[in-house]
Amino acid sequence: MPEPDLNFTIKRLGECRYSSPIKEFRFIDEDERLLYHACPKQVKSFFDSGCKPPELEMAGPRRQIFFDPTRLACGIVTCGGLCPGLNDVIRAVVLSLFHHYGVRKVHGFRYGYRGLIKRHGVTPMDLTPETVDPIDNMGGTILGSSRGPQDPAEMVDYLQELQVGVLFTLGGDGTLKGAQKIAEEALRRGYPLSVIGIPKTIDNDISYIQKTFGFETAVAEAQRAIYAAHSEAVGAPNGVTLVKLMGRDSGFITAGAALVEPDVNFCLVPEVPFTLEGFLASLQARLGNRSHAVIAVAEGAGQDLLQVSKEYDESGNLKHSDIGPFLRDAIKNHFQKIGVEVNVKYIDPSYMIRSVPANPHDSAFCLMLGQNAVHAGMSGRTDMVVGFWNHRFTHVPIALAASKRKKLDVEGPLWASVLATTGQPHQM
Amino acid sequence: MPEPDLNFTIKRLGECRYSSPIKEFRFIDEDERLLYHACPKQVKSFFDSGCKPPELEMAGPRRQIFFDPTRLACGIVTCGGLCPGLNDVIRAVVLSLFHHYGVRKVHGFRYGYRGLIKRHGVTPMDLTPETVDPIDNMGGTILGSSRGPQDPAEMVDYLQELQVGVLFTLGGDGTLKGAQKIAEEALRRGYPLSVIGIPKTIDNDISYIQKTFGFETAVAEAQRAIYAAHSEAVGAPNGVTLVKLMGRDSGFITAGAALVEPDVNFCLVPEVPFTLEGFLASLQARLGNRSHAVIAVAEGAGQDLLQVSKEYDESGNLKHSDIGPFLRDAIKNHFQKIGVEVNVKYIDPSYMIRSVPANPHDSAFCLMLGQNAVHAGMSGRTDMVVGFWNHRFTHVPIALAASKRKKLDVEGPLWASVLATTGQPHQM
Amino acid sequence: MPEPDLNFTIKRLGECRYSSPIKEFRFIDEDERLLYHACPKQVKSFFDSGCKPPELEMAGPRRQIFFDPTRLACGIVTCGGLCPGLNDVIRAVVLSLFHHYGVRKVHGFRYGYRGLIKRHGVTPMDLTPETVDPIDNMGGTILGSSRGPQDPAEMVDYLQELQVGVLFTLGGDGTLKGAQKIAEEALRRGYPLSVIGIPKTIDNDISYIQKTFGFETAVAEAQRAIYAAHSEAVGAPNGVTLVKLMGRDSGFITAGAALVEPDVNFCLVPEVPFTLEGFLASLQARLGNRSHAVIAVAEGAGQDLLQVSKEYDESGNLKHSDIGPFLRDAIKNHFQKIGVEVNVKYIDPSYMIRSVPANPHDSAFCLMLGQNAVHAGMSGRTDMVVGFWNHRFTHVPIALAASKRKKLDVEGPLWASVLATTGQPHQM
Amino acid sequence: MPEPDLNFTIKRLGECRYSSPIKEFRFIDEDERLLYHACPKQVKSFFDSGCKPPELEMAGPRRQIFFDPTRLACGIVTCGGLCPGLNDVIRAVVLSLFHHYGVRKVHGFRYGYRGLIKRHGVTPMDLTPETVDPIDNMGGTILGSSRGPQDPAEMVDYLQELQVGVLFTLGGDGTLKGAQKIAEEALRRGYPLSVIGIPKTIDNDISYIQKTFGFETAVAEAQRAIYAAHSEAVGAPNGVTLVKLMGRDSGFITAGAALVEPDVNFCLVPEVPFTLEGFLASLQARLGNRSHAVIAVAEGAGQDLLQVSKEYDESGNLKHSDIGPFLRDAIKNHFQKIGVEVNVKYIDPSYMIRSVPANPHDSAFCLMLGQNAVHAGMSGRTDMVVGFWNHRFTHVPIALAASKRKKLDVEGPLWASVLATTGQPHQM
Repeated sequence: MPEPDLNFTIKRLGECRYSSPIKEFRFIDEDERLLYHACPKQVKSFFDSGCKPPELEMAGPRRQIFFDPTRLACGIVTCGGLCPGLNDVIRAVVLSLFHHYGVRKVHGFRYGYRGLIKRHGVTPMDLTPETVDPIDNMGGTILGSSRGPQDPAEMVDYLQELQVGVLFTLGGDGTLKGAQKIAEEALRRGYPLSVIGIPKTIDNDISYIQKTFGFETAVAEAQRAIYAAHSEAVGAPNGVTLVKLMGRDSGFITAGAALVEPDVNFCLVPEVPFTLEGFLASLQARLGNRSHAVIAVAEGAGQDLLQVSKEYDESGNLKHSDIGPFLRDAIKNHFQKIGVEVNVKYIDPSYMIRSVPANPHDSAFCLMLGQNAVHAGMSGRTDMVVGFWNHRFTHVPIALAASKRKKLDVEGPLWASVLATTGQPHQM
Repeated sequence: MPEPDLNFTIKRLGECRYSSPIKEFRFIDEDERLLYHACPKQVKSFFDSGCKPPELEMAGPRRQIFFDPTRLACGIVTCGGLCPGLNDVIRAVVLSLFHHYGVRKVHGFRYGYRGLIKRHGVTPMDLTPETVDPIDNMGGTILGSSRGPQDPAEMVDYLQELQVGVLFTLGGDGTLKGAQKIAEEALRRGYPLSVIGIPKTIDNDISYIQKTFGFETAVAEAQRAIYAAHSEAVGAPNGVTLVKLMGRDSGFITAGAALVEPDVNFCLVPEVPFTLEGFLASLQARLGNRSHAVIAVAEGAGQDLLQVSKEYDESGNLKHSDIGPFLRDAIKNHFQKIGVEVNVKYIDPSYMIRSVPANPHDSAFCLMLGQNAVHAGMSGRTDMVVGFWNHRFTHVPIALAASKRKKLDVEGPLWASVLATTGQPHQM
Repeated sequence: MPEPDLNFTIKRLGECRYSSPIKEFRFIDEDERLLYHACPKQVKSFFDSGCKPPELEMAGPRRQIFFDPTRLACGIVTCGGLCPGLNDVIRAVVLSLFHHYGVRKVHGFRYGYRGLIKRHGVTPMDLTPETVDPIDNMGGTILGSSRGPQDPAEMVDYLQELQVGVLFTLGGDGTLKGAQKIAEEALRRGYPLSVIGIPKTIDNDISYIQKTFGFETAVAEAQRAIYAAHSEAVGAPNGVTLVKLMGRDSGFITAGAALVEPDVNFCLVPEVPFTLEGFLASLQARLGNRSHAVIAVAEGAGQDLLQVSKEYDESGNLKHSDIGPFLRDAIKNHFQKIGVEVNVKYIDPSYMIRSVPANPHDSAFCLMLGQNAVHAGMSGRTDMVVGFWNHRFTHVPIALAASKRKKLDVEGPLWASVLATTGQPHQM
Repeated sequence: MPEPDLNFTIKRLGECRYSSPIKEFRFIDEDERLLYHACPKQVKSFFDSGCKPPELEMAGPRRQIFFDPTRLACGIVTCGGLCPGLNDVIRAVVLSLFHHYGVRKVHGFRYGYRGLIKRHGVTPMDLTPETVDPIDNMGGTILGSSRGPQDPAEMVDYLQELQVGVLFTLGGDGTLKGAQKIAEEALRRGYPLSVIGIPKTIDNDISYIQKTFGFETAVAEAQRAIYAAHSEAVGAPNGVTLVKLMGRDSGFITAGAALVEPDVNFCLVPEVPFTLEGFLASLQARLGNRSHAVIAVAEGAGQDLLQVSKEYDESGNLKHSDIGPFLRDAIKNHFQKIGVEVNVKYIDPSYMIRSVPANPHDSAFCLMLGQNAVHAGMSGRTDMVVGFWNHRFTHVPIALAASKRKKLDVEGPLWASVLATTGQPHQM
């Protein structure tokens, strides 16, 4: 990974003039930082050359805060596709605002950024400890969601009308870019609005953040699909089951699924290109040895093959823009051509994965994430997301988080374990 | 339901000359029967008219058995699609043969009836208590399965060569008909072969049998898909999620799913015809009131609509032979036409449902089913299946079980509860 | 089982003058009955001797109802220990009252019969579709519960003051007897109160009812404890794990657990007496053969041993009134005496079993049970419970249901399967 | 935490003369290290003062290895109490030895160190890919376990006789100390034995290691007990449920449980002393406000109270050496004394927690842990454990890992989140 410039500070709305009402054994000092690198050599080389090594700001409660909690209204919005843990984060934010800081008004904007546009006429939900108490074991989002951007000016108009001081946005790349525009628009107006993003990407592909909420649950749920795939594959002569998992740009879920359920024989991810011929030859060899195979493919894997395919198929048939059916058909055709009976089955479990409640470990992560988002907002930070790095919660500028997708390190230990576990060829 | 003739006896291979080696507090007497009807009026009318009311033979251990267990070899075969509990039944049969009767040889034929054809060269597995002990928590079938019939004569040749005395066949309608042919072929040859079917239909659609193994688990797993569907539906403006469930001819799984997860708003089953217009109008009304909807549709529902559709679509496009995508597209088109935004999602969880292990209650049912199948086989019965009726295990002739599909009684309490729970119109 | 007199009618408050507002394809006729016996011989012998065979009244919606739903208030109360499905039944009753009959007032009495005593000052909850909608996946009871009787006159005073027309009581033996007294007190006053019991006994020990809600879930949860017990037993040299399960008078849960998790080697139930010497000798033999053992014991098993023990132990030590610790210590002492190392562990999972949410199949059962209770109440029946017999919902007079405990039939197929599965001696 | 001296190197058996047979994209260089600290200031101060900051050796595959895999025999032993994931680690070690390195002999020593004493006559299991393939979803340990030390010389005698080159020991503190003695004894004899520990502590209390296997699963399972506790507490008037969780010296599981199931109102851990009076007063206040309470107590919490208690109770009654029953009785007595009815229930779920299979995320962790242990062993390292620090697998000398227990940082963010979530007083 190229060297990031992580040393700029997180944007702040102004001086923190209020004492925090929460009782903490230990507040985080304003200058607490975390080393981005963990390799002593790398870090030393920075010091040796007189540079500060890249570092991240630590999340956590501050002794002094920017907003007067007793007069503060907040807002929460969830955008994009479902992800396990959305309701846990909403719950944690609301409970922390009420119980830790004494905030008394939280607007739950409905259906994503659309709910921030007043003329759409969707009244925000009034979020209180009572409304959020029972939602910690619920999948989905009680606020609803939607995709797509909205006009920043119009959104800030409504936020100003509602006198919202802190807006928490739960969403992925596009949502964060929208949040950045809201933050910038507010700053331009001199309207003190803290915009705190909580990165939601089931694919776990946000840069400078090791783990996003929902990811662990998604991997655990993917195991169900792999289990089914294995049962089906061994249950038929030359059974081949193909499971398409989430991962538009990054193969983290697919790689994770290969580790949690060691029945995966081929793990195909966007980061590792393969040729159709190479893959089919390997599959044929596998069937020759073991008579069944399970393939986990990330939705973003093999995109170059699809483009090649389009060139050959002049009808421009859009069904082949999806790697799942494309591979399924390619496998069927290949073995039909060589006269070998195979029983190919295809499973697309995406909706069933993304809509489940967060599992316990993930749920605790959501809780701490939400609490840290509240601390960040109360301190008047803005245009940032709450991250997680080397076991600690951090602050990351949106610009940095949304700069590029995090990718599987194909030379790292995770992918090495996947190769070791599946036994698949390193190159196909 | 028309009056069945249930009073003929189950076929028997011959006189039971051996004493059962199992120690039982109470054996089932050879003439123990169960009333088919439970309504006193109906039963009385039979007696009044001098007829015997319809009755079923009781399953269970017999004092005298036909086979000498010490010299008996048995076989098991699993056919057709996967179903929760297959391995539990295999395990129960093998353990009961070994531990209760002292049988020492059980052939596990591979990949369905195909494994009964010697020239295919698939050696049967040697099933022992050791091989089957760990499989009780496993989905799928360790024997593998396949579809389609094989030549009865060739199968009986192989069974005779292996000196198999009892063949247990796990499968649905087609499998049972195949089992019947095997039984008849053996009888024709004077070869004493007991063929005992254990009905496997995840759809629970076998006549004269109230419950088949795997069904309860399938309904419980369907709940996951409905849960996901509900999360997705409420998570988007005018969210509509369509879940296609198993049920080629009968709506039991779909009706069950509507009762276990009360978020289903429309339950569409083969037994209850509907018009596309009626359904779409009801859906539109529902969205107007509640802004989201969950639809559970059995794969066999609305088949008449698909035929109509084919008439209009002269390209003969086969994708519309599947009610799931057909309904999904019909919903999208309808709301596009009337200019109402809807977010339609489609979930097809079939492989993930049918490949899971049986849940505890179902697993205990499999255990008792397998034990009763063994008792039936040891007593020299043949051409029959083990059934379940009014809380008791029974013997049912294959001819009767495979005669016609069991259907949801649309005037009965189950469907009334579905209507009451979904709130859907009685007719659409 | 001695011949029950099941032919008396269910008590009714009076003439049904209102038409049912629900739309049903098929109402249950007032004279629809179900045969208690299923054996043709038994039934025939009744007819032959000119007697009516025992029969039960069918549950279900009636065409004519007693109460005017628009002016009716109802009440629900949950008594005794927790049981899976309590909230499902509460939810089904409330939704059915509101949506099917148009009732608008349902009082949720708090903490059992205690909440029916006005001077205790516990205001009933106002139960509406909104309050009960999210509780279907929740363990416990939202109403709270308590044990012990209260004064019937005082309870009826409060019910009259609140103008409650139908009271639904969820509870076991004691609760039903209390319900009976309430019903009798109201009848005595000429106050038209329908008292409908929904039998709640996790032990499944209510007479003339094959299955009570929560039982299947309890068996499934017991499997977790058995699984743990097996892991512990095989994980240590001569590992012995003892699991105490519910079942004060009846061994249904313990027997069920032995069938769902075939790692149980000894299943001890109240219906099958054993001597300590016999049991310990069998355990010793088992350890000699297999080096580990799992014992499932119902809380009511071996009560005679405890009395013997008390005679020997004059300190009157109460710890031995519990079969679990008693057996644990007896096992330890025995093997210590004979100089054999054993690793004995003891698991008492009761609270963790009874507090879980109902599983899907059980949950659907609760739904239909609640709906049938509502139908019964609306029809003006009283002093009865909703039962389940041979696959159908029934009405059973409280006097009959609470007359004596249902017991495991030690000569029936369930216990035979348990013996066959555990391989334990028939007598110890 | 005082500054550790982490810069000594891991012990090595000798020169690595063999090329690794595994194909890796990237081997770990022999000098790759990881910073122990993550705070830039701290690290800088080391460099500024001319010292090397503390660092840990990175785990992973090495290009050159010490053992010739084709002639190597290995051994695995599991010691102490059960922990989720034991079988996953065994499986990962065996599969990695066979598939990655081509080792052909792995002895599975039975019942802990006892199985390493030849005269006990317990033949080791022969572990192969076939034997370990199906164990990844199994709780417990297929090898069995036992507690207590054995004579190092006698163990090394047997290892030498079996020509074991690498011994993998899975266990806690005591096991690691035993492993150290084995390693030292072998070094003393000049017998090239690599002893690789895989720390097993469900309490997650091993120093210099952020996470041990089984811990996440234990927290997730603890949630079940907390759920039950909450159902019971709200289900009775003034319901109080006390759950005792694992954690002899450290409160990680109890703290984790408080975060995953936000129904915990009091979280009592060994690191945070409390007075009985303070706790009871807080509980009384809680009941006054909310009428129910859930208390999670680590087994090692409040040990000073127990000692005080012993002083007052001269009978030396051992039942009070357990904080669970002690607190339960203290609560009952307190409220009885002040005349307030409470319904106290006590749950001890320990065996049910520690015997479950690892959950998916934990299972993947076990897989990578086992693979890294194999890499370490093949490279001829010894007297070390595989650790995990800041998202990376590491090597830690046993002496360091077993030096002292890791404790909850009561000034850190985890405990702060627990306090924030439970709302309990910071001091009681």
